Amino acid sequence: MNPERLLQEAEELKPELVRLRRDLHRYPELSMQEVETTRKIREVLSGAGIRLLPLDLPVGVLAEVEGAEPGPTVALRADIDALPVTEETGLPFASEIPGKMHACGHDFHTAAIVGAALLLKRHAVELKGTVRLLFQPAEEKGTGAKAMIGAGALEGVQAIFGMHNKPELPVGTVGLAPGPLMASVDGFKLTVTGKGGHAAIPDAAIDPIVAASAIVGGLQTAVSRSISPLDSAVVSVCSFHAGSTWNVIPDEAVLDGTVRTFRAEVRQKLPELLQRIAGGIAAGYGAEARLTWFAGIPSVTNDSEAVEIARGAAQALNLHVTEARRSTGGEDFAHYQEQIPGCFLWMGTSGTEEWHHPKFMLNEDALAPGAALFALTAVRALDRLRD
Amino acid sequence: MNPERLLQEAEELKPELVRLRRDLHRYPELSMQEVETTRKIREVLSGAGIRLLPLDLPVGVLAEVEGAEPGPTVALRADIDALPVTEETGLPFASEIPGKMHACGHDFHTAAIVGAALLLKRHAVELKGTVRLLFQPAEEKGTGAKAMIGAGALEGVQAIFGMHNKPELPVGTVGLAPGPLMASVDGFKLTVTGKGGHAAIPDAAIDPIVAASAIVGGLQTAVSRSISPLDSAVVSVCSFHAGSTWNVIPDEAVLDGTVRTFRAEVRQKLPELLQRIAGGIAAGYGAEARLTWFAGIPSVTNDSEAVEIARGAAQALNLHVTEARRSTGGEDFAHYQEQIPGCFLWMGTSGTEEWHHPKFMLNEDALAPGAALFALTAVRALDRLRD
Amino acid sequence: MNPERLLQEAEELKPELVRLRRDLHRYPELSMQEVETTRKIREVLSGAGIRLLPLDLPVGVLAEVEGAEPGPTVALRADIDALPVTEETGLPFASEIPGKMHACGHDFHTAAIVGAALLLKRHAVELKGTVRLLFQPAEEKGTGAKAMIGAGALEGVQAIFGMHNKPELPVGTVGLAPGPLMASVDGFKLTVTGKGGHAAIPDAAIDPIVAASAIVGGLQTAVSRSISPLDSAVVSVCSFHAGSTWNVIPDEAVLDGTVRTFRAEVRQKLPELLQRIAGGIAAGYGAEARLTWFAGIPSVTNDSEAVEIARGAAQALNLHVTEARRSTGGEDFAHYQEQIPGCFLWMGTSGTEEWHHPKFMLNEDALAPGAALFALTAVRALDRLRD
Amino acid sequence: MNPERLLQEAEELKPELVRLRRDLHRYPELSMQEVETTRKIREVLSGAGIRLLPLDLPVGVLAEVEGAEPGPTVALRADIDALPVTEETGLPFASEIPGKMHACGHDFHTAAIVGAALLLKRHAVELKGTVRLLFQPAEEKGTGAKAMIGAGALEGVQAIFGMHNKPELPVGTVGLAPGPLMASVDGFKLTVTGKGGHAAIPDAAIDPIVAASAIVGGLQTAVSRSISPLDSAVVSVCSFHAGSTWNVIPDEAVLDGTVRTFRAEVRQKLPELLQRIAGGIAAGYGAEARLTWFAGIPSVTNDSEAVEIARGAAQALNLHVTEARRSTGGEDFAHYQEQIPGCFLWMGTSGTEEWHHPKFMLNEDALAPGAALFALTAVRALDRLRD
Repeated sequence: MNPERLLQEAEELKPELVRLRRDLHRYPELSMQEVETTRKIREVLSGAGIRLLPLDLPVGVLAEVEGAEPGPTVALRADIDALPVTEETGLPFASEIPGKMHACGHDFHTAAIVGAALLLKRHAVELKGTVRLLFQPAEEKGTGAKAMIGAGALEGVQAIFGMHNKPELPVGTVGLAPGPLMASVDGFKLTVTGKGGHAAIPDAAIDPIVAASAIVGGLQTAVSRSISPLDSAVVSVCSFHAGSTWNVIPDEAVLDGTVRTFRAEVRQKLPELLQRIAGGIAAGYGAEARLTWFAGIPSVTNDSEAVEIARGAAQALNLHVTEARRSTGGEDFAHYQEQIPGCFLWMGTSGTEEWHHPKFMLNEDALAPGAALFALTAVRALDRLRD
Repeated sequence: MNPERLLQEAEELKPELVRLRRDLHRYPELSMQEVETTRKIREVLSGAGIRLLPLDLPVGVLAEVEGAEPGPTVALRADIDALPVTEETGLPFASEIPGKMHACGHDFHTAAIVGAALLLKRHAVELKGTVRLLFQPAEEKGTGAKAMIGAGALEGVQAIFGMHNKPELPVGTVGLAPGPLMASVDGFKLTVTGKGGHAAIPDAAIDPIVAASAIVGGLQTAVSRSISPLDSAVVSVCSFHAGSTWNVIPDEAVLDGTVRTFRAEVRQKLPELLQRIAGGIAAGYGAEARLTWFAGIPSVTNDSEAVEIARGAAQALNLHVTEARRSTGGEDFAHYQEQIPGCFLWMGTSGTEEWHHPKFMLNEDALAPGAALFALTAVRALDRLRD
Repeated sequence: MNPERLLQEAEELKPELVRLRRDLHRYPELSMQEVETTRKIREVLSGAGIRLLPLDLPVGVLAEVEGAEPGPTVALRADIDALPVTEETGLPFASEIPGKMHACGHDFHTAAIVGAALLLKRHAVELKGTVRLLFQPAEEKGTGAKAMIGAGALEGVQAIFGMHNKPELPVGTVGLAPGPLMASVDGFKLTVTGKGGHAAIPDAAIDPIVAASAIVGGLQTAVSRSISPLDSAVVSVCSFHAGSTWNVIPDEAVLDGTVRTFRAEVRQKLPELLQRIAGGIAAGYGAEARLTWFAGIPSVTNDSEAVEIARGAAQALNLHVTEARRSTGGEDFAHYQEQIPGCFLWMGTSGTEEWHHPKFMLNEDALAPGAALFALTAVRALDRLRD
Repeated sequence: MNPERLLQEAEELKPELVRLRRDLHRYPELSMQEVETTRKIREVLSGAGIRLLPLDLPVGVLAEVEGAEPGPTVALRADIDALPVTEETGLPFASEIPGKMHACGHDFHTAAIVGAALLLKRHAVELKGTVRLLFQPAEEKGTGAKAMIGAGALEGVQAIFGMHNKPELPVGTVGLAPGPLMASVDGFKLTVTGKGGHAAIPDAAIDPIVAASAIVGGLQTAVSRSISPLDSAVVSVCSFHAGSTWNVIPDEAVLDGTVRTFRAEVRQKLPELLQRIAGGIAAGYGAEARLTWFAGIPSVTNDSEAVEIARGAAQALNLHVTEARRSTGGEDFAHYQEQIPGCFLWMGTSGTEEWHHPKFMLNEDALAPGAALFALTAVRALDRLRD
């Protein structure tokens, strides 16, 4: 498959991809409500003769482009859901639904991967294996990837590729890096139980606010002392609630927060570490602290070989490749990578606002390179897997 | 006035006082809603020929017993309001109004001072001066004494006496002490302002929870380091609220609390001290802290001479006098003492539960000694003031 | 014994007492080195015919004035040691020994109690019982009272009286109060053990400095939260030592401090409280904290009856009696009070500098009233004990 | 220059390099005392006909291998000093000087770079430019590189290469990474000034221990909140000293510590950040905190192109190249990199103990590959610079 030719074909597809993207943008749908989005993707794919696979989920699309020759299977994944944000871009194709917006650019991901599918379908005779296409719902809720896997979307798949648009990289630049790219995302609740009482008789009470405050201070040392400075991590207490009036010491204080890590070894030790810190300090203040851990998504961690395949494809397409800077944000693409090797990459989109912003925009010139990159990456991955 | 005789007369009044007290107990009224209570007190007093003074307040009673001879004026004060508590005593005369209860014994105070008034009226010929009677509303809200003063209740009054029932002292025991007896009660709000942001990007935010937690720790030193250990004081943060979800650093944290002190010099320095602690620590964390001070009631501080008068009266009545142990609770009797010398004392009532408890009870045998004590104290105070 | 007469006799003794006091002042001796001081006291007492009792201690004096009639025994106590301070008063009788000074006025205590002894000896025929005289060494070290007790000084004694000069009270004023007057004095050491390591690899170490710092913060709550605000107390960490260089995390941190309380119940719970706070917090930080408690002297706590005896004597001598304000300092007079009832009082000396100051001075006009007060108190105590 | 041939020649040199290395190991010399070490290096180099350049330093060696053709100049650097450690390896060539040991393997670095020099000298006709050789003293003190630069060692040099042995990598493995590899190393002192006083009267003092302890807690947030989790950093307080006894609140507390960062932007903001934290918190406690910053060495930050040259050379020599894991330790090689592009790499030495350990050992089989790698890297760097 000639890279130059492929890029040219992608550019020819651009009007169609733009149309699709703008249509999705105009009618955004939230996680697990992507009914129309699902219908539209299915329509385009089946219109191009791409085989739709059964998928036992209310939303989302699973499809496949089979090559002429049998061979391995690799997957391309796009996420398709929008956010509960009211758009303020003023674009002609801005969201028509108040309170909903494609403020994270999943419309772009969807259109680009549809583009890749169309390109692959055209070149099916050159394909030595199969390319599975995953249009995943509910990435924003962190539950879509698990649902797709549960529905069998990865069966037979040997490698997977996905992307996120990246406003601070220019169109034509791809960010790539082996190893951890995005953080694991877990939540926790700490309930600090003292003994309520009259504000004027503190000695008859056990003050949970003083204990919980000391715990907040102590939790800073999880990152500053207990986790290697070489292992990026975040422990944030984002909510602290205790008491209902100014003159009664309450019974308990409740803290909620999140933990971000990049390595499984680090992630694993966090629940115990936080419980040790909170429990010990609480005991020091005569109180008790109980941790509830809400395991979320693991770290997006790229396979070196998969990264090299994508790097090779990007370079062949004359895209600029840069070392991807990590993000402490999370992505449930990580769940696929728990199962099979994969590569998640940054696709430059020359934006000005960060993800989730009501004025978030991206440059649609990135659609064609994106489609070509994923098509070529899939082809090369199949080749590599056959070696 | 013969003490023994007086006590005997008081005992004779007891059934009437018990009846009044139980009636008030059965129909408790909250602060500034003491309409029926006011009516009943007026009825008893005027029924006994005691002169009711005009009082420009919706509730509360002002009355006077004039002696045969002109002379100084002293005041006796009772508070008359109930609490928003649902009674659980099971008494035959328990509150008939759900959610309201005389759980602090103001019904007792009222009946005892009514008793004192009746005794004084009987002995008016022996009185060398005038005894003003204050039945004050809204003590629980801390606003009643100020309202009474504003309405002129202290005009011409040279000394004032009041009491609180004391469950842990037996009937027949009076707690007396010169100087500070009950604490000043002030409130404060601390607003700690940081800069909200994504939980995963703490360096782009200023975490108000971490700053406010450090402030809670720092505030402990107000008492432990900055106020003399010989000056009892309390600084309690009773409420801490920040954040609305687990993964967003909020903009601010709000703390509410109370301060108790016993000396005006100590009380005065607290607002500045708390602002210094909070402001400095907040600045250390890159945040800002703003203190709002809600000046409440000053410390109940007894005049030595007034105490000696009450002590003499108690001893003459063969009551047991004990050194009153301070309370970190507050009483708006303090407002009267800002204007004129006064003595606030503990009247033993052999209770088992603390004030404000739904099972709070007291022994009505304390009514007669209470009535006699305040009558005799008033008589002796007038004598002393004439010297 | 006529109080006026007694005071006049005391004034006649004044020159002799001043001479003695100045001689002691000029040649101060430190704790357990009071050899010349002991000799001088013995000389004056035996010169007056007062019986010296055997005392199996290298320093200190035990003597007795027996009354004509047999009866109970009460004790008067003076402390006799000086301080390691270099005097800066410029007085003509200033210390001739650099680095030693009667900067706490024990020379005054000694001379006044000698004066009381001389007065009592003159009036021995009126005495109904025996007055024991204790001239105790090593008060400053806190070991003298225990040594005197060990040597049998309290045998047969039923009550004891002592004093401390008080610069802020004028000559002629006596400070008296029942109950706790001076604080208990205990010491503690907290050893916080972590695990040393390279400053750049904190995750391989357990940082004892961070843990110990959190403990210092936590210890503030002993006073601010765990001890009643009505019970004065102090917990001071006065020394914190950890680490020997800038780039190695040390193994441990060592804290030293002191605790002051006024009630035995409060004092007793402190070791456990401090261990709980330190141990819990240390555990939270992965470290360990071990408390060593150095039990010192208990609180000087006055017996009500003994106070009343002294009060009566003071009033009879026309001295002004004021409510004694507590001191958070300690006094080993407390050890006597562990054995028998006693009263420790403030004797006004119109000073300008506090105890232990190199410019500490006192007004010798307080000598005669002091001598008379203790003589009369002893006489009245004997009378009371015979009742 | 044929890589295979070069490696073979290096292996032939091995006995001589081992001899040199063991000689240096047996007689270790501390920073700026490397007199014999300097003599030995000069002897070997001049014995091989390598030109010694004048160097106006008491210790250290500067030399040059000139190629047949004129061209650019690149530098190879070894550090030559030992550590104040008493050796416990039991090796036959263990240190003969108690308290001194090559416990960081600088003897290995020296011998390997000498080997590279000998190889380059043999192939001088093939060299298109000049290779400067830096044998730098006092790396352990962090002052040697600055001294070499001050003495002109980098004059005319366009790129520099250096290494550190790496125990956890096996012989034959090279660790390489562009960007920051080792941390900047700075020191700080925080003087927290309160106001001393009697331990029992905390309100008359300003407790510097409480303030400094809160500052230690606050400093944890420099890393946990104020520096991006993606930018590794360390802030360690390694020493905390305050007070000299158990019952006197001292005037001040002194903290010493170190900061490690990997990016100049992060490093630059640290002094201000630490001062803000300490100053604000101190103010909250009524105290003052003053930061003294001891700027040390910047981060070892590798030039991408220089890394690629070394990578190419390593691969050509069939060495295994791995992504270098960062170290929070520091290296004054960073000072050279402030001036010119450079690459610092890990050379696997199959050790069991970490640097600075008294049982630190390394496998001498790494000498020949090390020599060959640096020789070939120099050759290739010259070639690249000529392009």
